[in-house]
Amino acid sequence: MEFSSKLLENAVNEISQLPGIGKRTALRLALFLLRKPEENTTELTDALRKMRNEIKFCKNCHNISDSDVCEICLSSNRNHEIVCVVEDVRDVMAIENTAQFKGIYHVLGGKISPMDGIGPNDLNIDSLVEKAKFGTVKEIVFALSSTMEGDTTNFYIFKQIEPYNIVTTTIARGIAVGDELEFADEITLGRSILNRIPFENSLKI
Amino acid sequence: MEFSSKLLENAVNEISQLPGIGKRTALRLALFLLRKPEENTTELTDALRKMRNEIKFCKNCHNISDSDVCEICLSSNRNHEIVCVVEDVRDVMAIENTAQFKGIYHVLGGKISPMDGIGPNDLNIDSLVEKAKFGTVKEIVFALSSTMEGDTTNFYIFKQIEPYNIVTTTIARGIAVGDELEFADEITLGRSILNRIPFENSLKI
Repeated sequence: MEFSSKLLENAVNEISQLPGIGKRTALRLALFLLRKPEENTTELTDALRKMRNEIKFCKNCHNISDSDVCEICLSSNRNHEIVCVVEDVRDVMAIENTAQFKGIYHVLGGKISPMDGIGPNDLNIDSLVEKAKFGTVKEIVFALSSTMEGDTTNFYIFKQIEPYNIVTTTIARGIAVGDELEFADEITLGRSILNRIPFENSLKI
Repeated sequence: MEFSSKLLENAVNEISQLPGIGKRTALRLALFLLRKPEENTTELTDALRKMRNEIKFCKNCHNISDSDVCEICLSSNRNHEIVCVVEDVRDVMAIENTAQFKGIYHVLGGKISPMDGIGPNDLNIDSLVEKAKFGTVKEIVFALSSTMEGDTTNFYIFKQIEPYNIVTTTIARGIAVGDELEFADEITLGRSILNRIPFENSLKI
């Protein structure tokens, strides 16, 4: 791509560093900003810079927060004895949206993935084990994605906290609500039969 | 979507103002920036702000430029008697990449589109008509997209410059190189038969 302006070229190069955005999309975004009033760009860049410089991570659960400890961890309405282990902030938001979980969270910041060079020490696992060892935690709920990496991470943490006599659970896998049986994959269908639940429980939501 | 941080929420809202980027993608981009070193965000925001504040538009052809007149318009290697009319900067880049055009450009900044509230006065048409009236232009090449709006814009400009005895041409429409005839639409195939060219011309590229 040949640019008639160095300034445009720099902007396009920077935008295309973002994941899932190629040079063409980056150019479209840059031209969009050029067509709009200068304030739009200022607002965007200010919001990005402020977020990057001022955002904090909760000391307790590693969730993104504006203060040292996040609102969920501070709340007295939550059950601090149940800790839900998730991969990242988006999972906290997804679970919060269901309004079905009243415990607190622990954000790992990723999954163990040797292929991507991510080992246990790159994740917030130690602080979780500390909580299990010294804290008042009674149940740990694994809510990682159901992939090889997710399962590896679950198992690694499970082994670490095994000595401390804590109940460990994992979110249910099964046929999604609204899905047809015939199109479900065999593993999911198999698991959903093995882990069947009393019928009256299914009436709760 | 419920955010655990106002700073993150602001950033996501600003990013999702960009075309084709929804809240979920915006969140993914924001979290990507949070995972990367602070310099990455600074470089991105600096590049965007510099581009928006310092970029200029060529006084002659309205192309994006770092100076008052763009390199193409300044070049003595280009034929200033042939002006190619395009919709926006991306079209200039696309045509420049072919290395087949040796004239100069005129960037309209859009197409006449009553549905989107874009009339002739919102585009750089007057300056093109001025060039046709007082300038040394001998040929105007229409290279707008082949849509209702593109055709309307072509015709509007054509009518404006008709009195000044300038050759007007339009880029050829036809079957794309590498395409199979049987899958071409009827209008394109019909036009490509009507506007057939001497066989020896097709050997040039």
